[in-house]
Amino acid sequence: MALDILSKKYLPALEVELRSVINEINGTPYQQLKYMLNYHMGWEGKGAGLQSQGKRIRPLLLLLATNAAGGDWKSALPAAAGIELLHNFSLIHDDIEDKSPTRRNRPTLWQNWGVPQAINTGDALFSLAFVSMSSLDKYYSAEITLNVIRLFENTVLALTKGQFLDISFEDRDEVSIDEYMQMISGKTAALIGTSIEIGAILGNADAETQGAFRDFGTNLGLAFQIQDDYLGIWGDENLTGKSTATDIQEKKKTYPIIYGLNESKSFRKLWNKDSFSENEVEQLARILEASGAREKTRADEEKYINEARTALTRAHPMGEAAVALQTLIDQLMNRSQ
Amino acid sequence: MALDILSKKYLPALEVELRSVINEINGTPYQQLKYMLNYHMGWEGKGAGLQSQGKRIRPLLLLLATNAAGGDWKSALPAAAGIELLHNFSLIHDDIEDKSPTRRNRPTLWQNWGVPQAINTGDALFSLAFVSMSSLDKYYSAEITLNVIRLFENTVLALTKGQFLDISFEDRDEVSIDEYMQMISGKTAALIGTSIEIGAILGNADAETQGAFRDFGTNLGLAFQIQDDYLGIWGDENLTGKSTATDIQEKKKTYPIIYGLNESKSFRKLWNKDSFSENEVEQLARILEASGAREKTRADEEKYINEARTALTRAHPMGEAAVALQTLIDQLMNRSQ
Repeated sequence: MALDILSKKYLPALEVELRSVINEINGTPYQQLKYMLNYHMGWEGKGAGLQSQGKRIRPLLLLLATNAAGGDWKSALPAAAGIELLHNFSLIHDDIEDKSPTRRNRPTLWQNWGVPQAINTGDALFSLAFVSMSSLDKYYSAEITLNVIRLFENTVLALTKGQFLDISFEDRDEVSIDEYMQMISGKTAALIGTSIEIGAILGNADAETQGAFRDFGTNLGLAFQIQDDYLGIWGDENLTGKSTATDIQEKKKTYPIIYGLNESKSFRKLWNKDSFSENEVEQLARILEASGAREKTRADEEKYINEARTALTRAHPMGEAAVALQTLIDQLMNRSQ
Repeated sequence: MALDILSKKYLPALEVELRSVINEINGTPYQQLKYMLNYHMGWEGKGAGLQSQGKRIRPLLLLLATNAAGGDWKSALPAAAGIELLHNFSLIHDDIEDKSPTRRNRPTLWQNWGVPQAINTGDALFSLAFVSMSSLDKYYSAEITLNVIRLFENTVLALTKGQFLDISFEDRDEVSIDEYMQMISGKTAALIGTSIEIGAILGNADAETQGAFRDFGTNLGLAFQIQDDYLGIWGDENLTGKSTATDIQEKKKTYPIIYGLNESKSFRKLWNKDSFSENEVEQLARILEASGAREKTRADEEKYINEARTALTRAHPMGEAAVALQTLIDQLMNRSQ
């Protein structure tokens, strides 16, 4: 199987690497801090297990890119762990900012231990992500390590800029599709693009190939987010684990909803309430589809996935990792079908 | 004057450096994010000005250490800015965690713009601190830059471990002086120690001298925190800007209070209430003094300041920066007298 490389090689090695970074926190006084980190990572506490760990998509893409660029994925593990820890830091803070009570079907950190400890545990994970990144110099020169760190720093900054926009949108009546694309470019696509670019750098790809890998990642990230937005309204509950039209219920300003707000007067009118009955949610979904939002969302998702595929071709990926990358994309992009 | 070097040279150059890092955030959509950062730094908004900027102690100590070790302070500016930005990141998050409505006589970030934006603005500052640190390679080799970044990362981790303990102490009945010292070692002394150690590294000090500078900084940090705790109960309101015994009123577990809780039954008994009348605050302060807490706190402050002075002698500081360092310590350690 093309994806055996992930489940049999990358994932177990990644979990070992992630745990070794978190083990930087030791000593009796800090047991509870470590427990909170292990809980969030899906390793400890009620409901711990694979289903609570997330798919580790970003670090897997990084390792695949390293291998597909002709390098040894094992030496890229500190970067893969750094990316995943950073992603998890952002989830801890996002959950506080969004007041989300659950993540992956378990109470969020702030729900269990309060906002102050949750903010600080996120900050600890943020530090550990950098600790992991800088340990790349076990395998690479100080110059390469520093270049990767710089890329990483700028991505974290892009992430917080994207998050700034996302929080701002909640209080705004009008948001354009362009502004929305700028937000998800920072909040979602930047980290996926950087994961794959770092992978390529650590696989010793030349500058042109690095750029192609990055374009692949950025477009994949955009397609992925737009698909997520599509599924938040028209997804199959049995496949996604989310009930249909959740995003309407929660008044999330996602891609199709912003399209509807800009293009349909009747959608805009009905949207202007604090909460919706089940009937109203269905009505809003119908109006949205009639406005062309469903078609447009699907078309744009496909546009970005096609750009991702084109960029991947330009990157000339090699070996079993190349096959795995293709298979992974096919799987990711068909999760609703 | 010995401190002219700070006000005439270091401080203006530092402010320029700090602003140039924050200017990494540009573009119309992010104006408000930048404004929040500028507000927190004391540069914009109501009440902006020197009195709202903090004393920039940590970066000044860093620059002094670079100079006193025989290096050029100007090349250490990216590190000095990184340290100050990190310190300010921790203040933004601390204020949310402590629910503090004001800082330096102005509303805190979360008070003005809400918790979600404040958490995220802190995260942006965290990223910018690293962006600044890694730009050291304009003046130093990748190896030295990477060493400094690693020291910085471990310090951020120590900071979050200290903060974890501090938050935990609030809910605990018993805290020992040893545990308290461990907490302030992480939360306060680590960053001051690292500031001065990085300064020494960037001044090209040898390993032994770096260690002496670090010991100087760590002990200075401990003395400084214990002095702060002393002033929180027995400070002269006119000099400190805090009303006497504020820390008792706010039920803060500071050094003298932990001493009292461990050593005095009558203090422990009276402390066991949710809030205190003015009379009770005065009574508690008297009992605390009678228990020996005041004397013990002053003695320990002096112990650490003496260790700091001894370490500084071992560091053999040079030139005008050496004189300024001595003068600065004398000033810092006499702010109540």
